[in-house]
Amino acid sequence: MNKLSVVGMGPGSYDQMTIRAAQALQEAQVIAGYSVYVDLVKPHFPDKEYLVTPMRQEAGRCRMAIDAACAGKSVAMISSGDAGVYGMAGLIYELAQGRDLQIEVIPGVTAALSGGAVLGAPLTHDFAVISLSDLLTPWEKIEARLDMAARADFSIVLYNPSSMKRADYLRRAVEILLRHKAPETVCGAVRNIGRDGESYELMSLKELADHQADMFTTVFIGNSQTRNLSGKMVTPRGYKDV
Amino acid sequence: MNKLSVVGMGPGSYDQMTIRAAQALQEAQVIAGYSVYVDLVKPHFPDKEYLVTPMRQEAGRCRMAIDAACAGKSVAMISSGDAGVYGMAGLIYELAQGRDLQIEVIPGVTAALSGGAVLGAPLTHDFAVISLSDLLTPWEKIEARLDMAARADFSIVLYNPSSMKRADYLRRAVEILLRHKAPETVCGAVRNIGRDGESYELMSLKELADHQADMFTTVFIGNSQTRNLSGKMVTPRGYKDV
Repeated sequence: MNKLSVVGMGPGSYDQMTIRAAQALQEAQVIAGYSVYVDLVKPHFPDKEYLVTPMRQEAGRCRMAIDAACAGKSVAMISSGDAGVYGMAGLIYELAQGRDLQIEVIPGVTAALSGGAVLGAPLTHDFAVISLSDLLTPWEKIEARLDMAARADFSIVLYNPSSMKRADYLRRAVEILLRHKAPETVCGAVRNIGRDGESYELMSLKELADHQADMFTTVFIGNSQTRNLSGKMVTPRGYKDV
Repeated sequence: MNKLSVVGMGPGSYDQMTIRAAQALQEAQVIAGYSVYVDLVKPHFPDKEYLVTPMRQEAGRCRMAIDAACAGKSVAMISSGDAGVYGMAGLIYELAQGRDLQIEVIPGVTAALSGGAVLGAPLTHDFAVISLSDLLTPWEKIEARLDMAARADFSIVLYNPSSMKRADYLRRAVEILLRHKAPETVCGAVRNIGRDGESYELMSLKELADHQADMFTTVFIGNSQTRNLSGKMVTPRGYKDV
């Protein structure tokens, strides 16, 4: 049967890919993906056929990959991070309905994990992952999720915290979180995770309102127990006293 | 400086480890961890010195690893999944305070991602991760998080959904979720992710109340948009209409 792999490549560098993901790319004849991610893997798999599309053409990119697979080629479709977390895996399943195609999703390290590791250990307890992009989600729904997640004292990871068109979204999100979280709540921001120029910064929730995030930033908000331990963001789980 | 790596090994099989995690284990002189995880990596790194402790001795295990590293050995401490998600990374930071030690956390594929990939694509939109273990968390806090996460229409991943002592916890959790989520909400359960005997099942939220989960099961509850597409659990993100 025709086969399509949807591969999460992790934050970017080759060594943050799983061994299984690297094997899937090695075995594929065709690698499909958004140009920025293709550029990251191409040096490691130079002899492949590449199907590349620019940003925002998600459906077209998926259809192209599905068509190539249904034409009998073994195709790997790449996403950064995990293919299932704000990635292409869902769309591939939707668009492949009725096609004669076996789909395999190969998980990868999403920014909540790779960014968390850079900051320390912010997610050792229950957490919520929320995207601030309202391109496909009404802002009211995002607000409600921020409000409930803060109310329930989750650690929170914000994907897509800002873009040129949404310059004030992080500030708006922080204002909602401050309804239920203390202004001194420990927060962190990581930029260019696993890529050149990786950097991170710890700050309070109050300070986060003025943080200049961009589309390469992932933001972490601690729960009520999260602490700054010698410059690392750490959420204790409670083992210490057991 | 003395160095300690805290390594997330993913769900279990060697090939679901990242390349960087495998390199860290290869470079370490000592590998420390809970016996079940050590047994999974030992065949691939037979020539290492191993520091093994049984379950529930988390603090002792971490202290042992820290002491070995401070004695000048290069030590890798392993966790299943991601070392930061209900893993040992936080405790290592806490216990290493004041020690002359450089700590590096190497992220891995946590069960939300590896289990999600087995089920299809349940987490393509905002989601919450909640552990049902009340060993270190008051049950009232877990209940509040379930309630808020359901209210805000998050997809939800449940870790530790059941154990012998907590046989009815999944049913109690489902009862809370049913306050705000429809009984026909698409759910999934994955068992032994990435290991021998891996299996999965889709069901409704109503049916999930009677599902016999065990400590090797991870449970997924969809949001209001999640669908069963030819036996796979898929949460659409909305790209299709863009």
